[in-house]
Amino acid sequence: MDGIDRRGVLAGGGALAAAALAARAGAADAKPLRYAIVGLGYYAVNVILPQFANCRSSRVTGLVSGDPAKARRIAAQYGVPERSIYNYQNYDRIADNPDIDAVYVILPNSMHAEYTIRAAKAGKHVLCEKPMSNTAAEAEAMIAACKRAGKKLMIGYRIHFEPNNLNAIRLIREGAIGKLRFIDAEHGFVQGDPSKWRLKKALSGGGSLADMGIYSLQAARYLSGEEPNAVLARTSTDRTDPRFHEVEDLIQWTLAFPSGAVASCMSSYSSAHNHVRATGSSGWLDLDPATSYEGITLRRKTGDRTETVPAPAGPGKTMFAAQLDHLADCVASGREPIVSGEEGLRDMRIIEAIYRSAQTGRTVDL
Amino acid sequence: MDGIDRRGVLAGGGALAAAALAARAGAADAKPLRYAIVGLGYYAVNVILPQFANCRSSRVTGLVSGDPAKARRIAAQYGVPERSIYNYQNYDRIADNPDIDAVYVILPNSMHAEYTIRAAKAGKHVLCEKPMSNTAAEAEAMIAACKRAGKKLMIGYRIHFEPNNLNAIRLIREGAIGKLRFIDAEHGFVQGDPSKWRLKKALSGGGSLADMGIYSLQAARYLSGEEPNAVLARTSTDRTDPRFHEVEDLIQWTLAFPSGAVASCMSSYSSAHNHVRATGSSGWLDLDPATSYEGITLRRKTGDRTETVPAPAGPGKTMFAAQLDHLADCVASGREPIVSGEEGLRDMRIIEAIYRSAQTGRTVDL
Repeated sequence: MDGIDRRGVLAGGGALAAAALAARAGAADAKPLRYAIVGLGYYAVNVILPQFANCRSSRVTGLVSGDPAKARRIAAQYGVPERSIYNYQNYDRIADNPDIDAVYVILPNSMHAEYTIRAAKAGKHVLCEKPMSNTAAEAEAMIAACKRAGKKLMIGYRIHFEPNNLNAIRLIREGAIGKLRFIDAEHGFVQGDPSKWRLKKALSGGGSLADMGIYSLQAARYLSGEEPNAVLARTSTDRTDPRFHEVEDLIQWTLAFPSGAVASCMSSYSSAHNHVRATGSSGWLDLDPATSYEGITLRRKTGDRTETVPAPAGPGKTMFAAQLDHLADCVASGREPIVSGEEGLRDMRIIEAIYRSAQTGRTVDL
Repeated sequence: MDGIDRRGVLAGGGALAAAALAARAGAADAKPLRYAIVGLGYYAVNVILPQFANCRSSRVTGLVSGDPAKARRIAAQYGVPERSIYNYQNYDRIADNPDIDAVYVILPNSMHAEYTIRAAKAGKHVLCEKPMSNTAAEAEAMIAACKRAGKKLMIGYRIHFEPNNLNAIRLIREGAIGKLRFIDAEHGFVQGDPSKWRLKKALSGGGSLADMGIYSLQAARYLSGEEPNAVLARTSTDRTDPRFHEVEDLIQWTLAFPSGAVASCMSSYSSAHNHVRATGSSGWLDLDPATSYEGITLRRKTGDRTETVPAPAGPGKTMFAAQLDHLADCVASGREPIVSGEEGLRDMRIIEAIYRSAQTGRTVDL
């Protein structure tokens, strides 16, 4: 069903980590990948743009924004020339800009499909933020458009470049906790302003699941190295709360995996969570916090002993920089990104099944 | 439906803890309650019997066992006279023994109902180990028998006498984590010998849920202070494993509570778990381990700060002694135990719903 066999990538003892590290070493002399950032919201401006300074093979050479003044200010800060500033109307003209190789789509979820497909048509590679889209159908269209254009499509799953999570994957594959049996994965934060786009279903596609739950879902999949074959789910949302008129607040879902491992995942917009624990027949690994921008800590329990596991060197100076450089390496080498469009599509299909189970109260087989 | 309103007991800011402490203070001069221990397995011999030394109002004055040599040896150790040793055939003759006020049933689960009902008929109060019985119907019969005899029935939920768990309840009721939203409760250990009675369905009534999952279920109920109104569940059991020919290995279930709080509970016989985390709108409380015989630790996170919360004084020297003395106090005062037969019955009804949901793959409303 999918372009790459994710189980194949993940199963063999930290192959993902190894692949990322190898990509780093092998492509040191590759031509830099020149990105246009599409959308200048908080994450783009405050988290991603400063990260180009930590990159080996990535540059920012274009900006796309609906706010010309903001775009000009940021362009000046990062040395982006006036001619490489676009808005959402003239965006397709990036096709004619030889200084832009790729776009990084950091827009509200509902715009991911359109701006990915327009970029592919303009002959540019695409890094697109998670969740990939509002629906699996959109995700399929995005994959098809990039394939047709012969361009790479990568999803912004930064945690696949985070040393502690990569170490947890490696330790589990090496048998550090025996046979994996159970994963608890929790992500959430307390939403404030009800007018945020994330709380408008048409823009976000969903509530805490689309935004934060996808981290829990990803953790369950990359820690197990398996694809779930069944899901059951339950939501808890106070519809009288102005924040939650349109999207779900708390959602819990359980994934069954072919090996017999079970994951209980959840996300919330009314409580703060950032915790993952994987328990096997001989111990557990605990990431607490698991996926925050900094401070991620891995602990390991075997027998009666609990210890903090020091983070090994990661595939880049930061997970953000490693992510940006990974697409550069893939463009240079012709390889598929380890977090491809197909990987994003798998999540979208599971997310649709989670919502279906929550709605019907029944197990949904995958 | 129930004799006491558990929500009433728990709702008002650690009323449970307060009640236990008050019971302790108020009944210091009560006549000691004289127990016969029914069943001399590991828990009775190694955990409970040594605890009488820590009790204020409880004595051991009788033993019931199928192994006369073992019974004589233990009787000598604890000063129990020969005439107060019984076997499972002449057990009903405890009716004629004025030195026995109560029995503590520590037998395989399938025997709880019979030995509770026979004790009630013999005019003795009953402390019965968890799970109360194999079925809700048996639990109802046990309650009816004790009521008919005018005798107390208490279930061996020792955690209701454990200072850290009592403190967690109090803190949640006082709003220490804001509005409770989610509980993760995990209990389990790795089963060894496939011949153990706990792995025989006729004796145990069920697998990890009956034995360890009941701690997760209890934690969800006493931390929320609510009764669940829906459950969905999933099991994962390797039936080719000789340990799991008859009973379930891993089981995960999700409880929805009227307030909107959700609990993900699990138990396992193939991995070790002893962890409970309750997260609210302004922080979390974490018990890790949560319910072990010793070492229970409560942590609290508010804002960016995580701190270990020192255990306050408990209702007895140990949770085991406090449990034994609680029945003594209830007999002296005429009050219902805080962990009554009705409390055990509530768990049995939920356990039956959990198994039903796991079997059908559908949400079961409670």
